[in-house]
Amino acid sequence: MTTTESSSTPETVTEPSMTELRRRLGQVSDLGAAEALMSWEQETSMPDEAARVRGLQLSTLAGLTHAMFTDDKTGELLDAAAPQDDTDQAIVRVARRDFEKATKLPTEFVEERTRAQNEAHHAWIAARKGSDFATFAPHLTRMMELARREADLRGYDEHPYDALLDNYEPGMRAGAVKTIFADLRDRTLPLLRRIAAAEDAADYGVLTRPFPAEAQKAFAWKIAGEAFGLNSSFARQDESAHPFMTNFSRSDLRITTRVEPYWPACLFGTWHETGHAMYERGVSGRWERTPVSGGASLGVHESQSRLFENLLGRSLPFWERYFPQFQAAAPEVTAGLDAQTLYRAVNRVNPSMIRVEADEVTYNFHIMLRFELELALLEGTLKVSELPEAWNAKMQEYLGLTPQGDAQGVLQDVHWSAGLIGYFPTYALGNLLSVQLLEAAQADAGVAQGIQNAEYAPLLAWLTENVHQFGRSLTPTQITEQATGRPLSADPYVAYLHKKYGEIYGLDGAES
Amino acid sequence: MTTTESSSTPETVTEPSMTELRRRLGQVSDLGAAEALMSWEQETSMPDEAARVRGLQLSTLAGLTHAMFTDDKTGELLDAAAPQDDTDQAIVRVARRDFEKATKLPTEFVEERTRAQNEAHHAWIAARKGSDFATFAPHLTRMMELARREADLRGYDEHPYDALLDNYEPGMRAGAVKTIFADLRDRTLPLLRRIAAAEDAADYGVLTRPFPAEAQKAFAWKIAGEAFGLNSSFARQDESAHPFMTNFSRSDLRITTRVEPYWPACLFGTWHETGHAMYERGVSGRWERTPVSGGASLGVHESQSRLFENLLGRSLPFWERYFPQFQAAAPEVTAGLDAQTLYRAVNRVNPSMIRVEADEVTYNFHIMLRFELELALLEGTLKVSELPEAWNAKMQEYLGLTPQGDAQGVLQDVHWSAGLIGYFPTYALGNLLSVQLLEAAQADAGVAQGIQNAEYAPLLAWLTENVHQFGRSLTPTQITEQATGRPLSADPYVAYLHKKYGEIYGLDGAES
Repeated sequence: MTTTESSSTPETVTEPSMTELRRRLGQVSDLGAAEALMSWEQETSMPDEAARVRGLQLSTLAGLTHAMFTDDKTGELLDAAAPQDDTDQAIVRVARRDFEKATKLPTEFVEERTRAQNEAHHAWIAARKGSDFATFAPHLTRMMELARREADLRGYDEHPYDALLDNYEPGMRAGAVKTIFADLRDRTLPLLRRIAAAEDAADYGVLTRPFPAEAQKAFAWKIAGEAFGLNSSFARQDESAHPFMTNFSRSDLRITTRVEPYWPACLFGTWHETGHAMYERGVSGRWERTPVSGGASLGVHESQSRLFENLLGRSLPFWERYFPQFQAAAPEVTAGLDAQTLYRAVNRVNPSMIRVEADEVTYNFHIMLRFELELALLEGTLKVSELPEAWNAKMQEYLGLTPQGDAQGVLQDVHWSAGLIGYFPTYALGNLLSVQLLEAAQADAGVAQGIQNAEYAPLLAWLTENVHQFGRSLTPTQITEQATGRPLSADPYVAYLHKKYGEIYGLDGAES
Repeated sequence: MTTTESSSTPETVTEPSMTELRRRLGQVSDLGAAEALMSWEQETSMPDEAARVRGLQLSTLAGLTHAMFTDDKTGELLDAAAPQDDTDQAIVRVARRDFEKATKLPTEFVEERTRAQNEAHHAWIAARKGSDFATFAPHLTRMMELARREADLRGYDEHPYDALLDNYEPGMRAGAVKTIFADLRDRTLPLLRRIAAAEDAADYGVLTRPFPAEAQKAFAWKIAGEAFGLNSSFARQDESAHPFMTNFSRSDLRITTRVEPYWPACLFGTWHETGHAMYERGVSGRWERTPVSGGASLGVHESQSRLFENLLGRSLPFWERYFPQFQAAAPEVTAGLDAQTLYRAVNRVNPSMIRVEADEVTYNFHIMLRFELELALLEGTLKVSELPEAWNAKMQEYLGLTPQGDAQGVLQDVHWSAGLIGYFPTYALGNLLSVQLLEAAQADAGVAQGIQNAEYAPLLAWLTENVHQFGRSLTPTQITEQATGRPLSADPYVAYLHKKYGEIYGLDGAES
């Protein structure tokens, strides 16, 4: 404890300790930013031969960042810190939460897990290539065992899964997810059955009509600016094999995109990452270079990306407004089409084996399937050896499909090989939250009117005020309840699906 | 001191200490690479608004890199290290030299100097804008005072300038530079006078004929690959306001270029940076992630950039060989021209006020002028207030020109405002060394024949074997003497100028 002359009461620890804490957190943040920049650059522009040394450099940066943050000194500064206002209080609260989390796992455990993850990741690549789950199985067994140990080390009240889920969605519990997902499943599955039985005369060939790569990227970026407010003063668009968003400050945002003959991948992918970027952009500058900057959770982050990608980007007013520009950018795609036809085509409901290709109706089933299997594996009620069969059975139950081999089934995602257990639910939670937020935002007449005209400035202002600005200073639950007046629920999403796809597929829109 | 089982004699400290040292040096190197990448990205692709936070991030990285390297732990590891082979010996030797240098200046001095540099830099920008030396003068006085104190802190045998010069050109002394420069001046000035008096019927209008920006960059990069071996497997070309080369490993090289209506700026600038890049590329992989990687000095580095830019890039065989490709790339430039005409145009001797625009004959005079003035300022025989007058007098003496104001005179370079005293001579030393090395290389018939045909693979192999591979394991003097059989001398450069420009300007080629 240090005291200073400027302290009003001699016993109170004041600013200097807070200044020192912020200095240290700033350094940790800067190291993290350097690592993030090196990663981004690796994916977007690094020469191939640089990969090996870059891997070593990234490993050093990650290690030093972790070492500096988890150093005893950080704990001492947290103990000594005397926050004087809301800003400082949030910094100390969030930094302490992170510190306790980061120091809970013994170094030996983290090292063992890192080794196991590396081995599992390589085994997964080979297994997927050969579509052979058996060679990956021992690694998955080990990852599940490590996950159980991690849960024990972290501690939990109700379910070991909670301890893992909390890494990605602070405060969320497996029990709550179960309840929400059950409701979602029971009310979406009948809709999906009705859609599958409906006549579909749409022409999906337009989705692969010629659209040159540069023109795809340019149009996606232009609209990201005009519609959603992202621009080159504080952001960049680059290409990478897998699209992602990363940022090094709220004024230094990077989105990546990829270009395919199936052009919606580039457009909606870009707007998805734009949603992530605008979230980071909206976090208050008060939290700059502190652990409070950044999104509240993966789920809340995903709510923003999905909102921009789907709720706006795949809406009819959006396509009506931007159709003339799309015609100019993609004359071969739009020949003989109008905005309505295009809207129809980009909203195809098409059960598929692959999660990342899924539409708004089927996507969540991919997540529910994974969540249920993760839970059963962690509880030990499902053996790893039984996983492919269980996967295929659920895939048949939910989407009426049976994978042709493990590669397009249980081996399709990288997550489990990287030890990311408890991560999948955040995708579906984000979907649900996106609609719940949009519904709440539309209580404001200006926002609602703007959305009808595809003018999103009022919506963006609402999101900034009710979600973005808080960064990590509020939990996902706090943000949800404060912004929408109630806990997360499947209701808004279910209603949204029924209304939108009822109209598209000529169904009576009521839940059956 | 630690001993291990694997040690042959129990008293000998063996590998583990060396391993620990290399681990630490590797981390320092990785942090430095992260900083370098952040800097490169700042100059080439960063969004404008990111600048403020990026500055803080860079400052953190620089501070942590310095703190980690100068930590007592590094000193202990250096003391304990027991190098077993040449590679390890060089690592310990170079790391110890750097460590002693880095720890010689007290932190308070470094901090004071950093503040003074920042202030001087801002003052210089304003002064140059207003072409008003008087407002910069107090800052230069302070920089000279700090330079004298630095020299005292570092220590020197003969002249305080030696201590500063040693930062950039290890082992070089002011006395040696004086001797070499005097010889160079006395033997080049008469040549310059004869050139100035010679008839010049060349058409320099071709140097600003239309050549679209993308085509300039593409041609420069293509030839950097075909002629000099730089390619996208391990290097990138980007644009920046001021061209530079940086690298993050020997397999991760970056050159930047800028495009101007005066197209030689892009072409020769690119090949200049290519020379720097190929030096780093050629350093032995043994020194990876150690302080031995990188060039031996600024002077040796400059010898490589100047060799590629001038001795090859501005040679007749080069233009004869690449003229057809140049025609295809720049049809408007080459209309009605042949290789000889072009060669003639890009070798214009044109005394100018501005160092960075200078040709092969006049460039070194810009350096000699600065060196002489730095020396006089440091010795106190010249007052800062007298500097503009002294500058202009020397400019008149050497190049027959008088600057129209301080902006194009004494305020033109950034170096002094950044505290870089003792830096300028390395440019001219590099010029001299470039010719001395090329002369030595041509003793090899294959190299000589290759140069005649603009086939540079044999030369590159010679440079790699005799210069590049050693990195910093040899001093500039050792490299020079080992590669050329004698100490650095003005002879080869003077002879080169007389031969080349004697032919170009129709003079009898003998020294007058």
